[in-house]
Amino acid sequence: MEYSLGEIAGLINAKLIGDADYVINGVGSLSTAKSTQISFYANSKYHDDLKQTDAGAVIVSYEDLELSPSHALVCKDPYASYLKVANLIHPTPEHQPGVHPSAVIEKSARISESAFVGANTYIGSHVELDEYVYIGHGCVVEDNSKIGSHTRLQSNVTLCHEVKIGERVILHPGVVIGSDGFGLVADNGQWLKIPQLGTVEIGNDVEIGANTSIDRGAMSNTRIEDGVKIDNLVQIGHNVIIGAHTAIAGSAVIAGSVVIGKRCMIGGATAIAGHISIANDVVITGMSGVTNSINKPGKYSGSMTTMENTTWRKNMVRLRHLDELVRRINALEDKMSKSKETGK
Amino acid sequence: MEYSLGEIAGLINAKLIGDADYVINGVGSLSTAKSTQISFYANSKYHDDLKQTDAGAVIVSYEDLELSPSHALVCKDPYASYLKVANLIHPTPEHQPGVHPSAVIEKSARISESAFVGANTYIGSHVELDEYVYIGHGCVVEDNSKIGSHTRLQSNVTLCHEVKIGERVILHPGVVIGSDGFGLVADNGQWLKIPQLGTVEIGNDVEIGANTSIDRGAMSNTRIEDGVKIDNLVQIGHNVIIGAHTAIAGSAVIAGSVVIGKRCMIGGATAIAGHISIANDVVITGMSGVTNSINKPGKYSGSMTTMENTTWRKNMVRLRHLDELVRRINALEDKMSKSKETGK
Amino acid sequence: MEYSLGEIAGLINAKLIGDADYVINGVGSLSTAKSTQISFYANSKYHDDLKQTDAGAVIVSYEDLELSPSHALVCKDPYASYLKVANLIHPTPEHQPGVHPSAVIEKSARISESAFVGANTYIGSHVELDEYVYIGHGCVVEDNSKIGSHTRLQSNVTLCHEVKIGERVILHPGVVIGSDGFGLVADNGQWLKIPQLGTVEIGNDVEIGANTSIDRGAMSNTRIEDGVKIDNLVQIGHNVIIGAHTAIAGSAVIAGSVVIGKRCMIGGATAIAGHISIANDVVITGMSGVTNSINKPGKYSGSMTTMENTTWRKNMVRLRHLDELVRRINALEDKMSKSKETGK
Repeated sequence: MEYSLGEIAGLINAKLIGDADYVINGVGSLSTAKSTQISFYANSKYHDDLKQTDAGAVIVSYEDLELSPSHALVCKDPYASYLKVANLIHPTPEHQPGVHPSAVIEKSARISESAFVGANTYIGSHVELDEYVYIGHGCVVEDNSKIGSHTRLQSNVTLCHEVKIGERVILHPGVVIGSDGFGLVADNGQWLKIPQLGTVEIGNDVEIGANTSIDRGAMSNTRIEDGVKIDNLVQIGHNVIIGAHTAIAGSAVIAGSVVIGKRCMIGGATAIAGHISIANDVVITGMSGVTNSINKPGKYSGSMTTMENTTWRKNMVRLRHLDELVRRINALEDKMSKSKETGK
Repeated sequence: MEYSLGEIAGLINAKLIGDADYVINGVGSLSTAKSTQISFYANSKYHDDLKQTDAGAVIVSYEDLELSPSHALVCKDPYASYLKVANLIHPTPEHQPGVHPSAVIEKSARISESAFVGANTYIGSHVELDEYVYIGHGCVVEDNSKIGSHTRLQSNVTLCHEVKIGERVILHPGVVIGSDGFGLVADNGQWLKIPQLGTVEIGNDVEIGANTSIDRGAMSNTRIEDGVKIDNLVQIGHNVIIGAHTAIAGSAVIAGSVVIGKRCMIGGATAIAGHISIANDVVITGMSGVTNSINKPGKYSGSMTTMENTTWRKNMVRLRHLDELVRRINALEDKMSKSKETGK
Repeated sequence: MEYSLGEIAGLINAKLIGDADYVINGVGSLSTAKSTQISFYANSKYHDDLKQTDAGAVIVSYEDLELSPSHALVCKDPYASYLKVANLIHPTPEHQPGVHPSAVIEKSARISESAFVGANTYIGSHVELDEYVYIGHGCVVEDNSKIGSHTRLQSNVTLCHEVKIGERVILHPGVVIGSDGFGLVADNGQWLKIPQLGTVEIGNDVEIGANTSIDRGAMSNTRIEDGVKIDNLVQIGHNVIIGAHTAIAGSAVIAGSVVIGKRCMIGGATAIAGHISIANDVVITGMSGVTNSINKPGKYSGSMTTMENTTWRKNMVRLRHLDELVRRINALEDKMSKSKETGK
């Protein structure tokens, strides 16, 4: 879409230095943007790019205004403002309302007239799709699920029965919501299945990445609160609760009955063991294995750093005997203090 | 479904203290169950919940019988009995037999009259679906695959060609069985593909979680024995054999040609390197990296514990020099024993 | 398919010792191959198998020729030659060209007459399928994507809009290419979505395993170069570049903006943190967490080895205090050298 600099300045509440009628139709980095595109400058590392940019306009902070070689939009946080502009110019594509003739819709489903249902998609009994919902191609929405307005299921998404999804949610391809949790009890050398009687509730403004799976609760519901962002291939077990605005990076594993607070950041490939809690505002760096509750905001880590293979081999042999090593040091300290006392 | 307490007592072989005609239509925890629901008490931690429960009946052990405030069903293992009752009252939903008109069935497929095939599902040539099989919506079952009676494929499951699935198996959405294994040989700086000529055999009473993938064998078959339970997003490579009643938690990775014994428990996010064996009755805790065979039953671990980030940074710097550290301690011990000998 | 030993010898450039008209119709290991099958011998560990094999012919090296009990094909690299023969005898199944009547094809799509499109598959607007492309059942190829000749999408694969795939590529079931990257910026306690305006480019001869996901770029494109092989359930973030002929094993995690060189081998379950580079010809063993760039070819590791659980517990307690431990050793060394100097 196209906007004039005057319109953009108004929409992001910035001060315009330049031509209000100049028209912008795209965004780009300082080094790639063309004269009809807008860019931003927020890091002195890119000072040379700024001097040479062909961008039609640049979003800058007040301190950096004098550096800008072209039309400038001046504001407090150039990067956040740039993203707002990028979303304006490249909005989520509009969809035509309607149901593709190849889709299969059970009679009792209630589909808003402004919703879209794609090719080869199945919509089960008593499903409710609110206004402007977009269900892509090849999806399955099982019986009794409810999807809030402006939510998008991209292609090949599966919602199991009775799942509740909020508004403006985005589910990427391959996502599975509401599969049975891993509930087992040993019974004479075999496993007895614990029936998974809860469901999954997902709040508003949640985004969930490709091939991520979220299990339904065993008795109560698995719950993903408003504004949570989850990356690809993340596993979320049954009864988990994830607090509002928490972000979870790719291939993380959240085992059953974990409770994560609000505004946390969980690194990629990090695994959190079952039945523990994480406080609000906790950052856990990538590939950590978390086996105990974390009760205080802060930054936590538990991964091994990577080294040259031969060094690693030697160190790992030693690590297997670390406890003995400490005992040897204890003994040395004892001897040393005794030899001092005795003068020997 | 509804059952009288008399019926339930008979079915789980429990002694009823109370009204045999009292009707139960649901299950719940002590704190949430209502007067028409049944609960259980198996852990003294929930003693207060037991005293205050509104549950219509409680399953208890003989020792705890006097604590029960309502109708009681008395038996040896209250939790396992509770699960049997829960599965009675909330059975896997019955399906009507039949093939959805939007499903595509190749002519040579043999589908039992009691089986169900969902919307937009594809059933390939020479596929066999036994009695009471349920194939959900959006599934693909490729040529020559065979599925045993009462097995359920939930939505969007993929079975590749010639896969064999036993009876009463459950495959959750997004599962892929029988994709090509990762078989490569280096040849002049490029990779040559090893043809994957085996298939996958899955026994009876197996359950496999959402988006898990199991590769077909290269020469022989990948084999999942009876009663194995696998969680979501687990990767199982080619030629793997998993012994009966082993359970594997979410996002575990079992590399090619691994042989795992019977009744093992593999923790979430644990990775097992290729071509090694794990004995029967081995427990591996979560996030462990297993690179050598384990020949004895027991509990094994190999993950790092998580700490405050600044502590972790310091410790990790030291870990990179652990081998040198041990050499320094060796030297100290030598000097110490010499100084003792010489009196210095 | 069937070949005579004379034909095979010609095709793999081997010297035949035996009957050129003898017909082979399969491959097998030394211990399982029958008289109409061919096997190979490349490792003295299998010497006994070689002596007892029923194989109709064996591929051997010049040094091992005298050991071969049956028809022999003599060449430099028996295993690579064996794979060439295996691929000859068991070629990728031929497909009939044509579009299944249940597939949904947008009018503007351009589909080669030699291509195949399977049941319940969706092909979006302006999609281009080149010669001999095979699109399996239940796939979704979104608008403007382009697929090179002889490429195969197995069942239930999703290509998002504008993705470019090269020639002779294989995408296994459940693969998602071109989903939005995990691009977020904090803005007043909430997350602002960074629009993902790039796409994914995949070169020739790439193979990608089941349920793997590759995100589209934020500004520029995510790029997978020629001959790259990726296993199942691998996560590849936005803007990643993977150099030609690199292989990545199961459940690895490559975070956003990582650049990996050519001919690398990344072990299973290894995670590489965002914005770092890996040189050409780097081998990283499984389950390593890589948080810094690797600038030199070589072998690197960063996983913990697995031990008996009680040993592990003790060692991990000590690891949390490793930094203090080193300080204690420093102090001991100081005292020791002082006591030497002073004679105490």
